[in-house]
Amino acid sequence: MSDQDNILTPDLIVKKMYDNDDFSQWLGIEFLNVAKGSCSIKMTVRTEMTNGFNVAHGGISFSLADSAFAFASNSLGKHAVSIETSISHVKPVFVGDILIAIAEAQNVSNSLAIFNVTVKNQEDKTVALFKGTVFRKNEYWT
Amino acid sequence: MSDQDNILTPDLIVKKMYDNDDFSQWLGIEFLNVAKGSCSIKMTVRTEMTNGFNVAHGGISFSLADSAFAFASNSLGKHAVSIETSISHVKPVFVGDILIAIAEAQNVSNSLAIFNVTVKNQEDKTVALFKGTVFRKNEYWT
Amino acid sequence: MSDQDNILTPDLIVKKMYDNDDFSQWLGIEFLNVAKGSCSIKMTVRTEMTNGFNVAHGGISFSLADSAFAFASNSLGKHAVSIETSISHVKPVFVGDILIAIAEAQNVSNSLAIFNVTVKNQEDKTVALFKGTVFRKNEYWT
Amino acid sequence: MSDQDNILTPDLIVKKMYDNDDFSQWLGIEFLNVAKGSCSIKMTVRTEMTNGFNVAHGGISFSLADSAFAFASNSLGKHAVSIETSISHVKPVFVGDILIAIAEAQNVSNSLAIFNVTVKNQEDKTVALFKGTVFRKNEYWT
Repeated sequence: MSDQDNILTPDLIVKKMYDNDDFSQWLGIEFLNVAKGSCSIKMTVRTEMTNGFNVAHGGISFSLADSAFAFASNSLGKHAVSIETSISHVKPVFVGDILIAIAEAQNVSNSLAIFNVTVKNQEDKTVALFKGTVFRKNEYWT
Repeated sequence: MSDQDNILTPDLIVKKMYDNDDFSQWLGIEFLNVAKGSCSIKMTVRTEMTNGFNVAHGGISFSLADSAFAFASNSLGKHAVSIETSISHVKPVFVGDILIAIAEAQNVSNSLAIFNVTVKNQEDKTVALFKGTVFRKNEYWT
Repeated sequence: MSDQDNILTPDLIVKKMYDNDDFSQWLGIEFLNVAKGSCSIKMTVRTEMTNGFNVAHGGISFSLADSAFAFASNSLGKHAVSIETSISHVKPVFVGDILIAIAEAQNVSNSLAIFNVTVKNQEDKTVALFKGTVFRKNEYWT
Repeated sequence: MSDQDNILTPDLIVKKMYDNDDFSQWLGIEFLNVAKGSCSIKMTVRTEMTNGFNVAHGGISFSLADSAFAFASNSLGKHAVSIETSISHVKPVFVGDILIAIAEAQNVSNSLAIFNVTVKNQEDKTVALFKGTVFRKNEYWT
């Protein structure tokens, strides 16, 4: 039986990733939804995540989006590594805000895949728009 | 005397920012160099910054680069807010690695400025290439 | 009566832009749909648009997407200028292909707006994914 | 003798590409310099390249930068295809302007490479900043 016949389900891939992911745990990430090629996660912004004046550091919403992107892209079954990501911060994020990141595949080929991640706050307002591209290795999640 | 006559030096602007910046402090950022439109900072990667297997989460080198970008863009004298940033991760980062981020202005106009940030490790190898654009408000660091 | 009371309709703004836009005319752009904050256009790829082997130059799908982005962002009523755009080419484009670009606002604030543009071919396959940010001037289309 | 022993020189690779590249010829591209991993080209902006009011369409400086990026990335010896490119337009370009695009490798690995391209006008002023990533196939220019 080859590796390709043995690929874990999206849920198990993401669980395996998260269990080793100390920084996602530090962020306080919880899972809302995982499916093949998509993932929604949430977290609450704490004081130690701010860059002054109660506003979250740009790295926080990026990190949340990047985690959603990593989970969604690996959930396709092959090990996926980030090539290029971009983020536009469109609204400030404050201490106590609950952020939700929704990652969705836009295009998947054999060796590349592109995702959009939208980050929203508890009022369903978009706070950041993220786009990411992964390289998909010939290595499977088994 | 107007606000423009009262602008702080790059060093004082960055000190004021850093003193309020809890997340940059959590990252353990130290300053190597600050000048008008440029900034070099460093940090050491800790276990809690990894996403498994001792490799740093993509949000860590992004956050370091984003801090260098924020310091360098505000050091020009006006309050600067991030519009769009992108990062390419070109080499894995490990626990114990010492990262240096060097931010340099590429283009500055009245209301916009573009920066490149190169992130290197202790062996002077590039681990990430970051590009960022800020909107420069009509508000001065005084 | 102020300029803001006199803003042209999306259709008239785009018509005014297109009538002066020699390069969009060279591309052979036709309009499928124009509304406030969105725009769909199409064109056919000609031999002189290729970079060899009948494959379209990357600048062609970019230019089409950039035109859709310019029309959609100006259709909001204020003069809009491009700050930053990115494109991922996900499928080759050939001579004779009919490309459709669909631009849609993702986020609009007073001075900035972000758009996604999807470029598809005649088989409804995505060939390129484009993201763009404009600066919205305090100048109206009247 | 394997393909790898037979790789063309950067000059010959770029000549072979340009001879088939109808759109680069339409742009009127001339070569200033070609070396392994870098390339400088120039062109003059014509009326048919504008989007009204004598200002060049954003697709023109993108296309010039994208050509320089394609030549520089393929000059490394392997067939290279664009994964993701971004451009910031920082200064308007006018009819009659002479544009120079300078592409330089920032990071090269076995399967990926990242380039910066700076586009300047005849006054040596930067008009656009471009960043691009290619996938390097296991196919050589022979």
